[in-house]
Amino acid sequence: MKNEVTVRDGLRQLPIRPVYLVSVEHEGKKNIISVGMFAFFSGKPTLVGIGVAPSRYSFELVRQCGEYVVNVVDEKLMNAVRACGEKSGREVDKFELAKLTSTRGVEVKAPLIQESPVSIECKVVKEVEVGDHVWFMGEVLAVHVREAYNWKDGLLFKWVDEDGFYYKVGEKAGKF
Amino acid sequence: MKNEVTVRDGLRQLPIRPVYLVSVEHEGKKNIISVGMFAFFSGKPTLVGIGVAPSRYSFELVRQCGEYVVNVVDEKLMNAVRACGEKSGREVDKFELAKLTSTRGVEVKAPLIQESPVSIECKVVKEVEVGDHVWFMGEVLAVHVREAYNWKDGLLFKWVDEDGFYYKVGEKAGKF
Repeated sequence: MKNEVTVRDGLRQLPIRPVYLVSVEHEGKKNIISVGMFAFFSGKPTLVGIGVAPSRYSFELVRQCGEYVVNVVDEKLMNAVRACGEKSGREVDKFELAKLTSTRGVEVKAPLIQESPVSIECKVVKEVEVGDHVWFMGEVLAVHVREAYNWKDGLLFKWVDEDGFYYKVGEKAGKF
Repeated sequence: MKNEVTVRDGLRQLPIRPVYLVSVEHEGKKNIISVGMFAFFSGKPTLVGIGVAPSRYSFELVRQCGEYVVNVVDEKLMNAVRACGEKSGREVDKFELAKLTSTRGVEVKAPLIQESPVSIECKVVKEVEVGDHVWFMGEVLAVHVREAYNWKDGLLFKWVDEDGFYYKVGEKAGKF
């Protein structure tokens, strides 16, 4: 038996999704944003995408440089996600604020976050306005993975109202 | 210490994502597809989206009717996801094959899957070709939730090579 509920209440019942730290750079200005809106868009070519609200500082940085790096988050980066979500890069240096180290990738100028276990270098191939976000679809050009990292150590993120909770990946339920 | 790996190997280290059953109807033909490519695109208006390969039977159905229903999957629906992913709606009636019941929504003609704990009625507002998939962005018009359902009972899906595994949501790791 199902009941119709408000769209707002209903969407709270959707499964959890991962949260990422996205790092960008343009004309020497580096920034990091916490991003919940990430998707895998295409297999061949390999395209992913991030949704960024036009009001965010990183919006113009991504648009201008046409590149970004998606960094996977583990438990040690939880405070960094919080810090990067609270402050704007207009006011603070996020790498300094979140005590993160920027390193160079191989295909794009945008910095990798050294402390992240998985960093994905992306070059924007398409920009699509969808409602209140602009989505930057990017081709995955290079991926860097920490030795012995297991994807199950990544965090999942549940957004409920103004509060969010992080969850770990649970036990295996079956095989496709 | 991170190492550059192939894009293919690197993407296997991305966090898990949910899988959904998407139900559609056009001119009396109902169908269900298993969809891993789902994303939340915009808050206001509330837009979600599904990526569908143009070769799939449901591609034309969605395009023609401009509507779809996203149904959340729990453990009891694991076999249905497998069945709906293996066969094409051109050959079989997926509702019959997967022993699922179609019910009527309130805003769209596409059927809800009664056995799913959460069903989201969507009307296509934008169609975007991204690589090898076409994304149908849909406005969420109505949501139906099973009484006493908890989102943590939903399943997460890990795609590795040709095999997939389902996982449950794990313990809480912290608060944003």
